[in-house]
Amino acid sequence: MRIAVDAMGGDAAPVEIIKGAVAAARFYTDHEMILVGDQDRIKSELVACGATTVDNISVVHASQVVGMNESATVAVRKKADSSITKSVKLVAEKAADAVVSAGNTGASVAAASLFLRTLEHVKRPGIAVSIPTFHGACMVIDAGANIQCKPSHLMQYGVMASVFCKYVLNIEKPRVGLLNIGEEDAKGNELVKETFSLLSNTSLNFVGNAEGRDVFDGKFDIVVCEGFVGNVLLKFAEGLSISMLAAFALEAKKSVWTRLGAWLCKPVREHLYSKMDYTEYGGVPLLGIDGICIISHGRSDSKTIQNAIREAIQFGKYEVNKHINTELEIANSSLVTAI
Amino acid sequence: MRIAVDAMGGDAAPVEIIKGAVAAARFYTDHEMILVGDQDRIKSELVACGATTVDNISVVHASQVVGMNESATVAVRKKADSSITKSVKLVAEKAADAVVSAGNTGASVAAASLFLRTLEHVKRPGIAVSIPTFHGACMVIDAGANIQCKPSHLMQYGVMASVFCKYVLNIEKPRVGLLNIGEEDAKGNELVKETFSLLSNTSLNFVGNAEGRDVFDGKFDIVVCEGFVGNVLLKFAEGLSISMLAAFALEAKKSVWTRLGAWLCKPVREHLYSKMDYTEYGGVPLLGIDGICIISHGRSDSKTIQNAIREAIQFGKYEVNKHINTELEIANSSLVTAI
Repeated sequence: MRIAVDAMGGDAAPVEIIKGAVAAARFYTDHEMILVGDQDRIKSELVACGATTVDNISVVHASQVVGMNESATVAVRKKADSSITKSVKLVAEKAADAVVSAGNTGASVAAASLFLRTLEHVKRPGIAVSIPTFHGACMVIDAGANIQCKPSHLMQYGVMASVFCKYVLNIEKPRVGLLNIGEEDAKGNELVKETFSLLSNTSLNFVGNAEGRDVFDGKFDIVVCEGFVGNVLLKFAEGLSISMLAAFALEAKKSVWTRLGAWLCKPVREHLYSKMDYTEYGGVPLLGIDGICIISHGRSDSKTIQNAIREAIQFGKYEVNKHINTELEIANSSLVTAI
Repeated sequence: MRIAVDAMGGDAAPVEIIKGAVAAARFYTDHEMILVGDQDRIKSELVACGATTVDNISVVHASQVVGMNESATVAVRKKADSSITKSVKLVAEKAADAVVSAGNTGASVAAASLFLRTLEHVKRPGIAVSIPTFHGACMVIDAGANIQCKPSHLMQYGVMASVFCKYVLNIEKPRVGLLNIGEEDAKGNELVKETFSLLSNTSLNFVGNAEGRDVFDGKFDIVVCEGFVGNVLLKFAEGLSISMLAAFALEAKKSVWTRLGAWLCKPVREHLYSKMDYTEYGGVPLLGIDGICIISHGRSDSKTIQNAIREAIQFGKYEVNKHINTELEIANSSLVTAI
C-alpha cells in the first residue's frame, strides 16, 4: 500500500511525524510512505534520521500548512496546496491508497469529504474513536465529523463501526448501543427515538440504549451518537482523566508517606497513563470515505504515527470499505422498508 | 422554612432519608422537616432514631412510591398519592416551602413542572449540577430536565445559573460558557450558534464557547448545554472516574511494593473520592420552578440528605427565585430586541 503521510500536521510536526513514517517504512517494507509537505524540511529531517536511502519513502512537496486552529472549510478551500489537502488529493488521484494526518481534524474531514467523497451507500462519514476500558475498547462513533445527524446517519454509523469491529478487531457480532439518557426504549429526543427504531430493523447486534456510564462497563463494543455529543464527550473525558491524575500527584505531595506511596505506585500510574495514552492507539478511522483516512491526535509523536500507519495498512488489508458498502446496501434496504 | 422531604425516594430510602432529615431538624431548629411517605414506616424509623419528640419534624402520609426505573410522566400521572407527587403538592398548596427528593429524577422534574409550574419569566426548568475541579466547582446546566432545547432555553439557563452562583455561591460575575465542539465563535450546530448570539446580547459575563475539557480548567463558573448532552456527559464522567479509581486499585494489587504504595496513598485516594463524592454536595437545584426543588442522587445517604436540606434553606434564604425572575425579565427584553 502507498500511504500519504501529512508531514506538516500536528503539534510535533514535522519532526515526530517524519520519524514515525521512517520507522513504519523500515518495519513495513512492503508498503510505501509518501511524505507530503515542505520538501526541504522533510529532506533535512530524513538526513537527520539517516533515512535518505530508505527505498520505500518518497516526498511530495506541498507549500502550505493548515494551522491547528484554522477554520476547516475555509482552510481547505483557500489552501489548495496545503499538506493535508495534497495528501488527500493523492488518494483521490489514485497516487496513494491511504492518508494519515495528525493535523487539524476538521480540515482532514473536510478535505476527505470534498476530494474523496463518501462510499456509494454512505450518507455521511463518521469518526470512530476507541475508548479503552477494563472490558476492552468501546468504539464511540461519531466523534465530530457530523455535528447535526439524521437518524439514518446514526443507523449507518452502527453498520460501519460493526464492519470495522468485525473485520479489523475480529469481534464476530459487535454489540451496538445507542447513546441515550436512559436505558428504556422510549427514552430520548426525537433523533434517538427514530434511530432506535431504525437500528432495531437492521441485522446488527443492536443491544439497545446506552447511558454515558455504560461505555465503561463492557456491555457494548460500539456506542453510536451524534458528532456534537461524541466530540464534547471525548474532550470532557480527556479533561477529567488529566484532572484526576494531576489531582492525585498534587495531593500525594502533601506528606512524606504519601509521597513515598506515590513513588512506589509509579508503575501503576504509568500503566494507567498508557491505557489512556492516545499514542498507543495511533489514530482513528474516518469511516464512510471512499478511500482510507486515519486521523491522529494533534499531540501525536513518532510512535502514534507509526501506529496510525499500521491501522491504515490493516484497514486496507481487511477491505473494510468493500464490506461497508456491501453491508450498507443491505441495511439501507431495511431502511426503505422501515420508512 | 418548611421542607417536604420525600422519605421514600432513593436507593437507601426510607432509612437514610429519615436519618438525614432528623439530623437536619436537630441542626436547623428554626426550620421544619415534613417527612412524606408511608407513615407507619416513617414513624418506626423515627422511633429507631430516638426522634419521636423532635418538635420540628412532622409526617404526611403517602400511600404510593415511584420506582427508580419507572417512566416519570406515567408515574406522576398514575400515582397521585406517591411520596414525590405529594411532597411537591405540599409546596404547590403552600403547606411547604421546598421539596427535597432522592427519588426518580424524571418524576421529580415532571411533578415539579406539573404542579409548581415555572416562574413567570421562565420557559423551561433546568437541572444545575456542580462539577468539582481543581479550580473550584463548574456548574453544568441542564443535566437532563430539558432534552430538546431551544436557544432561548439555553440563554435562560445562563441567566438562572448566574443568579444562583451570584447569590448562593457568592461569585460576583460568574463566567458563563456555552458547551461546543470548538472555541471559535462560529462553531457548532444551529442550536449553539443561535444561543451564542443570544448570550452575547445579555448582560451576563458570557466568555464564549467551552469545549468538553474546559469544564476542568477554571475558565468557566457555568457551562450551558442541552439536557441531552449534559445528562450523557455527567453519566459518562461518573463511569470514567469510577473506572479509573478501580483500575488503580486493581493494578496496585499486582506487586508487594505497589500494594504498599497504594496503602500509603490511601489518604490521597480518599481525598479524591471525597472530591467526587456526591454525598458532600447534597443535591442539585431544579432552577426555574416556582418553588424550591432540590434533587438528590439516587444513592444518597443521610449526609447527602442533610446537605440537600441545607441547600434548600440557602435557596430560600437568598431569594434565588425572586432574583431569577427579575434578571430574566431584563434578559428576555434583550431577547426580544435580538429577534
